[in-house]
Amino acid sequence: MKPVTKMGAVVLVLFTIGAFISPVKSLNNGLALKPTMGWLHWERFMCNVDCDTDPNNCISENLYMQMADVMVTEGWKEAGYEYVCIDDCWPSHQRDAKGRLQADPKRFPRGIKKLADYVHSKGLKLGIYADLGTFTCGGFPGSMGYYDIDAQTFADWGVDLLKFDGCYMKWTLLGEGYTNMSIALNQTGRSILYSCEWPLYEWPHHQLVIGNFGLSHAQQESQMALWAIMASPLLMSNDLRDICPRSKQLLQNTRIIAISQDPLGRQGYRTAKVDSFEVWERHLSGGRLALAVMNKQEIGGPRGFPLTLATLPSWKICHPQCNVTQVLPSYKELGVQTLLSKLVVVVNPSGTALLTVTPI
Amino acid sequence: MKPVTKMGAVVLVLFTIGAFISPVKSLNNGLALKPTMGWLHWERFMCNVDCDTDPNNCISENLYMQMADVMVTEGWKEAGYEYVCIDDCWPSHQRDAKGRLQADPKRFPRGIKKLADYVHSKGLKLGIYADLGTFTCGGFPGSMGYYDIDAQTFADWGVDLLKFDGCYMKWTLLGEGYTNMSIALNQTGRSILYSCEWPLYEWPHHQLVIGNFGLSHAQQESQMALWAIMASPLLMSNDLRDICPRSKQLLQNTRIIAISQDPLGRQGYRTAKVDSFEVWERHLSGGRLALAVMNKQEIGGPRGFPLTLATLPSWKICHPQCNVTQVLPSYKELGVQTLLSKLVVVVNPSGTALLTVTPI
Repeated sequence: MKPVTKMGAVVLVLFTIGAFISPVKSLNNGLALKPTMGWLHWERFMCNVDCDTDPNNCISENLYMQMADVMVTEGWKEAGYEYVCIDDCWPSHQRDAKGRLQADPKRFPRGIKKLADYVHSKGLKLGIYADLGTFTCGGFPGSMGYYDIDAQTFADWGVDLLKFDGCYMKWTLLGEGYTNMSIALNQTGRSILYSCEWPLYEWPHHQLVIGNFGLSHAQQESQMALWAIMASPLLMSNDLRDICPRSKQLLQNTRIIAISQDPLGRQGYRTAKVDSFEVWERHLSGGRLALAVMNKQEIGGPRGFPLTLATLPSWKICHPQCNVTQVLPSYKELGVQTLLSKLVVVVNPSGTALLTVTPI
Repeated sequence: MKPVTKMGAVVLVLFTIGAFISPVKSLNNGLALKPTMGWLHWERFMCNVDCDTDPNNCISENLYMQMADVMVTEGWKEAGYEYVCIDDCWPSHQRDAKGRLQADPKRFPRGIKKLADYVHSKGLKLGIYADLGTFTCGGFPGSMGYYDIDAQTFADWGVDLLKFDGCYMKWTLLGEGYTNMSIALNQTGRSILYSCEWPLYEWPHHQLVIGNFGLSHAQQESQMALWAIMASPLLMSNDLRDICPRSKQLLQNTRIIAISQDPLGRQGYRTAKVDSFEVWERHLSGGRLALAVMNKQEIGGPRGFPLTLATLPSWKICHPQCNVTQVLPSYKELGVQTLLSKLVVVVNPSGTALLTVTPI
């Protein structure tokens, strides 16, 4: 086995737990220092393989080509969303004569390589899905016993990201499996972003479901703010062909994306839990700070949270003063504040106020 | 004690359990055969008594006067919403010298009678709140030992509805307490709609929270459809002064309100639970039927529910055929259908399709 090289560097991103893990420092290749941004089909389109009845929403090459088109024409690419990711249910139930995975021939008549070419022609990248066990979660062929072949197949097709799931595999062997696939990917010589989908079913919503049917707008703001604070991958799973303007505006909000993609690459953390409020902070480049104040109370109306900079764990950055900007629920300059200024931040029930704090 | 008379008839409405209970038949006074429609402050404004900091949202006479104004100017009254209801936290902590409840003098400087006059001048009705125990849930004076005095006070003020809560009272005495207050209200000679708030804390959302912060639009459609099917009181608890157009349109949807207020006065029920769908039906006047199909699956996209009239418990009304109209998620005439026609109703995740079925 070759040692890890710059050329074939593999970067691990754990995204099931909703948290971005910084890459192994020694790789030093710059990849994935910023949370991945893109689109993934699962939460919205699941394992819909019925292209006869539902041609517009089934897992087929058309779906990804259409998403790639819209990502370019509707400002998603410009906002930073780069990966178009296939999730489960894309393969044929049979490997080919050489043991290679192949796409379902009816739903992907031109094959994955052509799809990758199409996505690349739009200036975007293609993600694909596989499973380290004997089957994928949806019952398609798993990669167990085929790690080298599958890694090479994905590289040959020009795939840029692999989501590697953990179904049909013993828990105790997961770590070894992920390591082996990481080595196999490195051996291909192609730089493939590698994300491990730990089967932690209690965390189903690691994908951004903003623009779907289940979250109120306040809840959508909370998801976006928390994902930015936690440096989680911004992987949307919605229908970009049909999304309401308010959700689109939220997902493309440049101030929130700047927090997510801050070059310092630090992850945020919760600093306080009081009176059904949660306060989170994330250190940003330039000595700045992002702050999120969540109103966890679902009943009632908007509530004011008294914010005094001196009470923050990172208060020192505001000695003697800071400039405070509100990013969510609406953009508002809150001006210059001293350590003891009394700010009141109004937060909607189930919503979040997102702020940036800049030392002066 | 006087027997129940037509004059002072008291009608019981249990609304904590989210269900409208038909009045005792023998009263035959026509009151409350239709679910109550109106507005109640609790879910949105709770026990906010801080008028110094939050004058616009605290429990004060201004809040109810403003809601009454908006109910007239913004089409709520015309749509059928009639009651403006005060919930907990309106009284002074002290009864007056004669043992009567009195409104907090700072927040209700003109008193409840003047507020009732104002609400009546708008063609609306006023609801008030009390508790059958020693305290209200919010810690204000309870009615225990004062049922006759309080009933007379409410009648003297011109109150039209009483929500009688069950805090600070033994469970085993609740039934007796409600009966005694019912008798006391009858004795006043004023017709007061009487609703009992059983302290079933597992059912917090008996009030319509459409237009607040916690429900997605699909969930709001489900609440409205289910409340109509179940003949539940349409008591909104939101901020009518600031409500988004889509939520307003839903709450004022005349076709849904017609189902809620159908003169047959029957309550709906669930008829099927299959593949994460629930089917509910309610018998309407004219031999018609209302149908609700809920998509209880929160992940994924809209799903088609195959609807064949022959599978309905009430299929006989469609022999030989029926006209089917979709009311939610959008109005659509689905046309004449035979018992074996294959209709596919598309339902959003966490949303509900509401239909009416009319025999031909």
